[in-house]
Amino acid sequence: MAEFKKLKLLDFWVSPYGIRCRLALAEKEVEYDLLEQNLQDKSELLLKSNPVHKKIPVLLHDGKAICESLIIVQYIDEVFPGKSSILPSDPYARSHARFWADFVDKKVAGLALQMWKLGKGEELDETIKDFKEVLRTLETELGENKYFGGDEFGLVDIALVPFTSWFYSFKAFADFSVEKECPGLAKWAKRCEERESVAKVLPDPKKVYELFYARRKKMGIE
Amino acid sequence: MAEFKKLKLLDFWVSPYGIRCRLALAEKEVEYDLLEQNLQDKSELLLKSNPVHKKIPVLLHDGKAICESLIIVQYIDEVFPGKSSILPSDPYARSHARFWADFVDKKVAGLALQMWKLGKGEELDETIKDFKEVLRTLETELGENKYFGGDEFGLVDIALVPFTSWFYSFKAFADFSVEKECPGLAKWAKRCEERESVAKVLPDPKKVYELFYARRKKMGIE
Repeated sequence: MAEFKKLKLLDFWVSPYGIRCRLALAEKEVEYDLLEQNLQDKSELLLKSNPVHKKIPVLLHDGKAICESLIIVQYIDEVFPGKSSILPSDPYARSHARFWADFVDKKVAGLALQMWKLGKGEELDETIKDFKEVLRTLETELGENKYFGGDEFGLVDIALVPFTSWFYSFKAFADFSVEKECPGLAKWAKRCEERESVAKVLPDPKKVYELFYARRKKMGIE
Repeated sequence: MAEFKKLKLLDFWVSPYGIRCRLALAEKEVEYDLLEQNLQDKSELLLKSNPVHKKIPVLLHDGKAICESLIIVQYIDEVFPGKSSILPSDPYARSHARFWADFVDKKVAGLALQMWKLGKGEELDETIKDFKEVLRTLETELGENKYFGGDEFGLVDIALVPFTSWFYSFKAFADFSVEKECPGLAKWAKRCEERESVAKVLPDPKKVYELFYARRKKMGIE
């Protein structure tokens, strides 16, 4: 395993955005220091490293800060050759991967957040309807492929797979079963979980559920 | 001038996203067919080429569709060598350019749209306040540089410069003067306008104003 001792990741364990970066680093077999952040009391280092958005994840490489998860993943891909590339080499295939990773950012992330933040009611029903449509669009794009990039685990897989550790919470809180609604996507999630990098990085869905449950309790939903 | 007769751009003249693509193509001195779209009655070609978002711009290259403006610009940069690169070759500089282009997408675009859609009142005042802050952040990032990428006109310039043809409308509708509030940014806009690609592609601010005025009239603001 290559050593890059000057590599640090400012992160928070459950963040799907942080998980993307950890996945990319695991895929490249690169060592780094994980600096877990308290998002309720942001560190000087975080505020200094990402003064614009003040958000994790931030990758520090030789003291230089790289922000925004998909940008970090592309940076990791460009800097560390590793065993394989996260983005394909063909420009059209690259643009295709970027399009779907961007789709995950624009469509999945917001709805997934809503899914555990809402109590039963009309707003949740609407969110479930929209979420189902978005996941089915992704399932159609996946088709019969092993991964979104075809045979190779790549950018879109890295963008989306962190949210699979929330599937258990979607079932518990919103009675929404990805397995039932999008079986192809659920199978893809299982395939990803069998991958070493994903198994190593993805948090336990029950721990994610416990965190969300505590937050829902604080919000007065549970 | 290189000829790529199979290159087509589905676009709408005033779209800042479309302008980005036209700028990138002009920078690379690539010929293409411009297929102006009617967004009130979307063509079969547009719906087929971008079935997910159903939006312009779409670049068609040898029959393959590339969507989302910043992804299109990166594709153009990767496929057509041209005189110079739109993205720098150094991975950190690339991530830095991607970060600020993404900032323009996340922060400028929505507020700029609000700026001409709102009548006088509290909501407009709030928007102006936020917009000023966003533009000042960009002005600080620009610093004393000629362009956002330093001496080279690049991704961030391409992402932001289309909105400069709206400055005249901001003054007319919201009494917001970029020249007064952000003189450094106004000077950068002037420098960009002197560039051949920008002069060729950017629409006349008065024509933009006329379109917005007509829309505001329809919305009952004027």
